Amino acid sequence: MSALKVYLAGPEVFLPDPVASTRKKELCQKYGFEGLFPFDNTIALDGLQKRNQGNEISQANETLIRKSDCVIANMTPFRGPSMDVGTAFELGFARGLGKPVFGYTNDHRRFKERVVAAYGPTRQIHDGRLEDCCGMAIEDFDLADNLMIDGAIYSATGNNVVVPHKSRSEYYSDLEGFEACLMLARRYFGVA
Amino acid sequence: MSALKVYLAGPEVFLPDPVASTRKKELCQKYGFEGLFPFDNTIALDGLQKRNQGNEISQANETLIRKSDCVIANMTPFRGPSMDVGTAFELGFARGLGKPVFGYTNDHRRFKERVVAAYGPTRQIHDGRLEDCCGMAIEDFDLADNLMIDGAIYSATGNNVVVPHKSRSEYYSDLEGFEACLMLARRYFGVA
Repeated sequence: MSALKVYLAGPEVFLPDPVASTRKKELCQKYGFEGLFPFDNTIALDGLQKRNQGNEISQANETLIRKSDCVIANMTPFRGPSMDVGTAFELGFARGLGKPVFGYTNDHRRFKERVVAAYGPTRQIHDGRLEDCCGMAIEDFDLADNLMIDGAIYSATGNNVVVPHKSRSEYYSDLEGFEACLMLARRYFGVA
Repeated sequence: MSALKVYLAGPEVFLPDPVASTRKKELCQKYGFEGLFPFDNTIALDGLQKRNQGNEISQANETLIRKSDCVIANMTPFRGPSMDVGTAFELGFARGLGKPVFGYTNDHRRFKERVVAAYGPTRQIHDGRLEDCCGMAIEDFDLADNLMIDGAIYSATGNNVVVPHKSRSEYYSDLEGFEACLMLARRYFGVA
């Protein structure tokens, strides 16, 4: 039987150094999986308009997720208090396809803490909810990110997002949380 | 026949005033649709721990999307240069379920412009890509947000994200783009 396939979602695609993705694939192998990284798509983009290039990459990534048995997402905050939106889309896509999704973050703070730090000062409003500096409500559910993300992971697999006790200094490329997700995936698929 | 159902995804759930969602439902009706807003979920949360409350809401919203015939997402940037990650997840979820997805933004700028404005100074790197202040690559595909989002909308319906010529002053609640999406949805379903 060929190895179960894991789609490696996360902001690694934006890192200058592709080493993190190489290490992720090696770890997948160590745990008996095959890692599929968006860059695996070798598609012809020459001569296409920018917009069409974007659409081709999107299609190729969707195809890769359809081929995968699960998704492990790096949810480390990206350009704001929340995770990368492309990664959030991919988690949702996999969940819609009925595939199990796992997630980790290298930031130890709860979502609420990060929003307060970045978008304070806050204000308590009439119904007890907390508002940020722009008058937008702050979610406070003791979760790692927006409730749709944590909720999907929990509903799909019974797991919470993997969060470190202390934020990792290799903010995007530390792989301890990723390795923990591989172990959860092994248990999920009954290969532990 | 009962009206086709539109799931109303967007950061409106964080606005202090629910009037934008009421107006969205009225517009849906005007165009022959039924609008389903996350707040429509009346679920018992009393006595639950915060974390479980979050999971219950997530489940209820997923159920609402499963019941819907399509999703129209408000992609106006939220706490950073990209859209709300909960909304991105919901778009992906609907796309995974094979449902058509539509999107609009009330910010006229391209994704690249917004990242440069918020995360400059930028730097051109060896392969011609542009890096932000933190050394992360900036997507430059002439799209409204991350390519997975624009790409999903295009693949599902043949449409681009609806973008205004000039950013709207009612940044989150202006509904011109939403109305344009309703017209695209009518055409998609052949009820135009």
